[in-house]
Amino acid sequence: MVDIIHRIGIKAPLAKVYEAVSTAKGIAGWWSETTTGESKLGGAITSVFHAPDGKEIGRMVFELVKLEPGKKVQWRFTAGPEEWVGTDLTFDFSRDGDQTLIVFGHRNWREAVEFMAHCSMKWATFLLSLRELAETGTGRPSPDDLKIDNWN
Amino acid sequence: MVDIIHRIGIKAPLAKVYEAVSTAKGIAGWWSETTTGESKLGGAITSVFHAPDGKEIGRMVFELVKLEPGKKVQWRFTAGPEEWVGTDLTFDFSRDGDQTLIVFGHRNWREAVEFMAHCSMKWATFLLSLRELAETGTGRPSPDDLKIDNWN
Repeated sequence: MVDIIHRIGIKAPLAKVYEAVSTAKGIAGWWSETTTGESKLGGAITSVFHAPDGKEIGRMVFELVKLEPGKKVQWRFTAGPEEWVGTDLTFDFSRDGDQTLIVFGHRNWREAVEFMAHCSMKWATFLLSLRELAETGTGRPSPDDLKIDNWN
Repeated sequence: MVDIIHRIGIKAPLAKVYEAVSTAKGIAGWWSETTTGESKLGGAITSVFHAPDGKEIGRMVFELVKLEPGKKVQWRFTAGPEEWVGTDLTFDFSRDGDQTLIVFGHRNWREAVEFMAHCSMKWATFLLSLRELAETGTGRPSPDDLKIDNWN
């Protein structure tokens, strides 16, 4: 099993960052605009991705398997790209000075395929989008997300 | 051993991207302004990092252990952060349409420490800087690099 891990600091209150990764409304502000579902422990959330021309290019479903306010949020993918099913997203929070720090993980990939390299780069840009959302009120969710390569 | 891997597409000729990661002058355009050394197989290159106030905050030394024009470049760190010594940077190139694709790796970390999560995020932003350099002529090397957390 292999993991993508990133670390980012956000100049915003921890509660605000926590909300942005633990509720459908928050996630819609930085990952995919089209995000709906139940924002509670065990709840299922669906994020749909579209190309700029409106065509659906991805549909991810995950459960909120851990919600520990101020500490940790964990998603588990139940549908989406075949490589993602059964993988987990983890957000571990701490504070230092004026920053909320996140250690982010997309964990338990079966192998380090080229698509994982794409996703690692893409998650980094989505974490920058999350920071923009928390610091300024406006993120850059799909379909307005930064394109990074020929796979989107 | 664990690896950081990223994938990015750059709308510029492969030869231009190759030069940017295989010569001291190129590397100075996207990683650290203060980069000097011998741009040849087996040559040693030094990149020094400074805080905005001019204070030195890092000094990385690496050898160019693989230079395969159009295909692959590999660096090996011989000095720098303790966790980096002995690790390799790899750039594997291909082309698709108008894009030069890079599969990037920072490979052979002894363990997935929190500093590796920081470096993964930081490399993603430096790859965006490399893309800017190759596409527009101006990158964002240190000390003007995007700060991502309380560790820089």
